[in-house]
Amino acid sequence: MELIKGGITAPQGFKASGISAGIKKNGKKDVAIVCSEVLCKATSVYTINKFKAAPLIVTGENLANKRASAIVINSGVANACMGAQGLEDAKQMALITGEVLNINELDVVVASTGVIGVPLPMKNVKNGIIEAAKIVAKDGNIDAAEAIMTTDSVMKELAYTVRIGNCDVKIGAMAKGSGMIHPNMATMLGFITTDANIEENCLDGILKEAVKASFNMISVDGDTSTNDMVVIMANGMANNEEINTNSENLDAFKNAITHVCTELAKLIAKDGEGATKLLEVEVIGALSLEDARLGAKSICSSNLVKTAMFGEDANWGRIVTALGYSGAEIDPLKVDVYLGNLLMAKAGTGLAFDEDKALEVLKEKDVKVKVDLNLGTYSAKSWGCDLSYEYVRINGEYRS
Amino acid sequence: MELIKGGITAPQGFKASGISAGIKKNGKKDVAIVCSEVLCKATSVYTINKFKAAPLIVTGENLANKRASAIVINSGVANACMGAQGLEDAKQMALITGEVLNINELDVVVASTGVIGVPLPMKNVKNGIIEAAKIVAKDGNIDAAEAIMTTDSVMKELAYTVRIGNCDVKIGAMAKGSGMIHPNMATMLGFITTDANIEENCLDGILKEAVKASFNMISVDGDTSTNDMVVIMANGMANNEEINTNSENLDAFKNAITHVCTELAKLIAKDGEGATKLLEVEVIGALSLEDARLGAKSICSSNLVKTAMFGEDANWGRIVTALGYSGAEIDPLKVDVYLGNLLMAKAGTGLAFDEDKALEVLKEKDVKVKVDLNLGTYSAKSWGCDLSYEYVRINGEYRS
Repeated sequence: MELIKGGITAPQGFKASGISAGIKKNGKKDVAIVCSEVLCKATSVYTINKFKAAPLIVTGENLANKRASAIVINSGVANACMGAQGLEDAKQMALITGEVLNINELDVVVASTGVIGVPLPMKNVKNGIIEAAKIVAKDGNIDAAEAIMTTDSVMKELAYTVRIGNCDVKIGAMAKGSGMIHPNMATMLGFITTDANIEENCLDGILKEAVKASFNMISVDGDTSTNDMVVIMANGMANNEEINTNSENLDAFKNAITHVCTELAKLIAKDGEGATKLLEVEVIGALSLEDARLGAKSICSSNLVKTAMFGEDANWGRIVTALGYSGAEIDPLKVDVYLGNLLMAKAGTGLAFDEDKALEVLKEKDVKVKVDLNLGTYSAKSWGCDLSYEYVRINGEYRS
Repeated sequence: MELIKGGITAPQGFKASGISAGIKKNGKKDVAIVCSEVLCKATSVYTINKFKAAPLIVTGENLANKRASAIVINSGVANACMGAQGLEDAKQMALITGEVLNINELDVVVASTGVIGVPLPMKNVKNGIIEAAKIVAKDGNIDAAEAIMTTDSVMKELAYTVRIGNCDVKIGAMAKGSGMIHPNMATMLGFITTDANIEENCLDGILKEAVKASFNMISVDGDTSTNDMVVIMANGMANNEEINTNSENLDAFKNAITHVCTELAKLIAKDGEGATKLLEVEVIGALSLEDARLGAKSICSSNLVKTAMFGEDANWGRIVTALGYSGAEIDPLKVDVYLGNLLMAKAGTGLAFDEDKALEVLKEKDVKVKVDLNLGTYSAKSWGCDLSYEYVRINGEYRS
């Protein structure tokens, strides 16, 4: 598995574009299109938030047959909580995209991100889609990745090549996400393309598992969005022998997709609103995978852990506190806590530790916490960021 | 029911004191004692955090017989995550208190609050308890309430008198809590005294219900502490006819205790670390009480709702988002959202609203949000505070 350039359009047969359609007040890019030369197997995972935004509902219907050719995305307005008008607008986005790309509107994935409860300016959206569709290109990946950003400070894309049988299969991806990040079942916007030839239900299973281990294991602020969506499209143009649940290549491809999702998730956590550090929490020695995930995510999501990281304060008591209310099965008298490689608490009891060494760990941009439950063999990692003054500033002023 | 002066010592037969024993580095008061002239019925509710601090374990054992005569509390050090030494120290606190007050050590409630994972300075604690015991007095309520503070900016006490049959029964209370506030099953430190004559299991049931509707419905930062504890002591000196589950006076007393707990909880939410506003969220029209509570608490706990309140931004989309991931049963197309009396969204759909009027509501010190699920008849209130720069500063520097 090798990192390559090209982002979302790295796999064969994919093109993209991103333009400014005037949906964002600041004139930045806000409409993106990703499309494949041929019809793809496609599947998706959505937010568990009961206020699912309109584009998720339309995409859910369009992906019922597990086929798609293109994705249209706007940023600036989330098209959430807009009732019947919202659904109509999301369908219009698919319809217009289908028309200008000359594909079936039901093969279009629709996604939106931005302010909730505001109507889409459909004139801008329509003109934007027409313009974006005209210029889709192999090198449109960066424009597309930029056009889906909201409070993101960096655009997020990556691509890998992975050997599947005799073929080099490519995987491309882009994502947006910086705030309202506490995904559950799906997250933010994540788009993955691949030229792999793969059976659709197998693709679906791989995506669902990968999302659980990656996007669902990050948290910026504990808020699960209405618009979270991860989509994967596989166009088969790599001509590998079809991957299915019995393939000997299944694991290689599954691991590659999980890796791509994990790296995207980490990019999102690191770019958390106002973040100055990436926090990685690993829980080992758990009785079950679920326990390990609950514990790791709870620690990563704790405002008190996050502010301690921002303040570079080795307050490990907050780590065990967050573990204690996580719901994970633990024995308080067996828990070991490490900050970096530094043992802070052994068997649930605080140790005298070297404050200077702890500060060294905390001064890093990537801070690692490890907790050993000493109960079983399961482990999980979670990623988050610190909670800074800047987070408060950004979110006190978001709509204005 | 009438508000009276006197705090925790307002009921007949209770005395208190609070002194500085040098546990806190800044020299502020850090040891408090509350005691009754006669043995009390007593019961308690504890944190669900699995890392229960040592004093909670000792108190749990001592209250197994539902009797207590005194409470000893230290602030500055939480005596949590200190293993066998922590348990020994908590037992010592009860032992010393029993000796100096000339009561059975098993009739002493022990509580601690402060930094986790640091040993109690037992020499200071011992001398502090001896000194505090010498000066317990009827007017020691304010000293006691001050001695249990940590990051609290105001001391929290109140007292009421309530008519039970032919008697005036008094209820006194004090609490501490400002950060690590997201109680579940119990919360922070809350102490309630009463001279009511009441059957012990009835007292226990009343406390548990009251805690669910009050302390468990507030959140400052989503973090459930290791040291949360609410204790009630009833010494019977009001000489009312014993209250039991069949009494006609049961509801009057129950409502009074619930009111006291709710008012204490609101004091804590309002004094949330860095808070500039008290946020009250009411969910009505729910299918069950549990749904109403889940929804209200989720909205009150959302970092994004809290930062919008701090920024005085009428971003109601964050309110429905937090409702949507709360787990409460909702129909997104039936939800109405009010900011103060201003209708922001009707049937799940955003309305054009008057930004100036919204800003008027948001500029208040007490901001009220109401959400009507339009599904059933249950309702619940939750209280929280905004999330400010000051919260980040306080918690970035807590140990130092």
